[in-house]
Amino acid sequence: MSEQVARSGRTLPSGEARPIYNLDRLLDVAVRVFTERGYDGTSFTHLAQASGLSKSSIFHHIESKEQLLRLGLERALEPLMASTTEEAATTGPAIDRLTHLVRRNLEIMADRLPYVKLLLNVHGNTDTERWALEQRRAYDKFVAGVVEDAITEGTVRADIDARTTARLLFGMSNSVREWYRPEQHTKPAQLADQVCSLVLDGIRVR
Amino acid sequence: MSEQVARSGRTLPSGEARPIYNLDRLLDVAVRVFTERGYDGTSFTHLAQASGLSKSSIFHHIESKEQLLRLGLERALEPLMASTTEEAATTGPAIDRLTHLVRRNLEIMADRLPYVKLLLNVHGNTDTERWALEQRRAYDKFVAGVVEDAITEGTVRADIDARTTARLLFGMSNSVREWYRPEQHTKPAQLADQVCSLVLDGIRVR
Repeated sequence: MSEQVARSGRTLPSGEARPIYNLDRLLDVAVRVFTERGYDGTSFTHLAQASGLSKSSIFHHIESKEQLLRLGLERALEPLMASTTEEAATTGPAIDRLTHLVRRNLEIMADRLPYVKLLLNVHGNTDTERWALEQRRAYDKFVAGVVEDAITEGTVRADIDARTTARLLFGMSNSVREWYRPEQHTKPAQLADQVCSLVLDGIRVR
Repeated sequence: MSEQVARSGRTLPSGEARPIYNLDRLLDVAVRVFTERGYDGTSFTHLAQASGLSKSSIFHHIESKEQLLRLGLERALEPLMASTTEEAATTGPAIDRLTHLVRRNLEIMADRLPYVKLLLNVHGNTDTERWALEQRRAYDKFVAGVVEDAITEGTVRADIDARTTARLLFGMSNSVREWYRPEQHTKPAQLADQVCSLVLDGIRVR
């Protein structure tokens, strides 16, 4: 948490006012702590320590820990769900729609990595977590539908069922969260090309 | 935890002695709690609640929480590291060795799912976690070496670097942990066929 605390203004020369801590910044800290300790394992004491705020200052921004979780999950879910309504995801050959979805998935991951990590760790013990899991299921169902369309159109192989194919290919795409560092690695667009190319054509030389 | 507690003998008619709680069973419970709450977020109170044992009974079996973590991680790491020394992983065409490694990875996951989940969530805050991460890195390096061999042998495409290919294909394989239920789904061997086939040839119809 140290850089975050530093950025929150605690390294300012004494006497200067601490900058106003906004909700965005609190959310960044909370999402990181949730991912490190698990949501259930995070207390307001942990959030206060990590943000450098008092508990009462935290309550000035939010009403409950669950509200922070919801705001964090929305940052991943909103662009993810929005990607399923984009023109490139809803019109044209199914295989192109599928490629578009994988590409958007990777762009969203690169753009909102901590929020996507949080989303992919959700278990479902609270209303908010159950809501997030429902949204993820809706997303997965949409993707499986596109795979089914592609099988019907004869562009995706029919020997593996649509749901397994959808799970495996987004499993590959989502696994990028475990090693991708936006500052170190290839740009999202290049990585998306590599994932799409592996997914479509496999690794074998023909 | 309820089935676990039931299996620990707490549903026996009163008066009957509680069966001896062995280390294996304690380990099963601990690994589940570590995965649910995070290792850092798990206290001996949580372990006592989940196992139905007193803290002193737990200390009869183990010396520290970290020892439980190490035993749990070994259950995933031992077969995984052993798979890299098997004949099918060390001799023959590299593409066959690679297929063998993916296949064994999925078999180990199906056989030891909770332990593999624990391993794949390790962060590296303790000596034991750092040790596990080192083992994982050694495994990843071995796999990337086999991908490199296959590129040299001209059987795996050279347009994506070996490390990225290795990461993505094991990312797909490891993602199975998120939805695979040994009691519900296809047998590990069938699933391994599907993953290997997707990885080698992609999803596109030619």
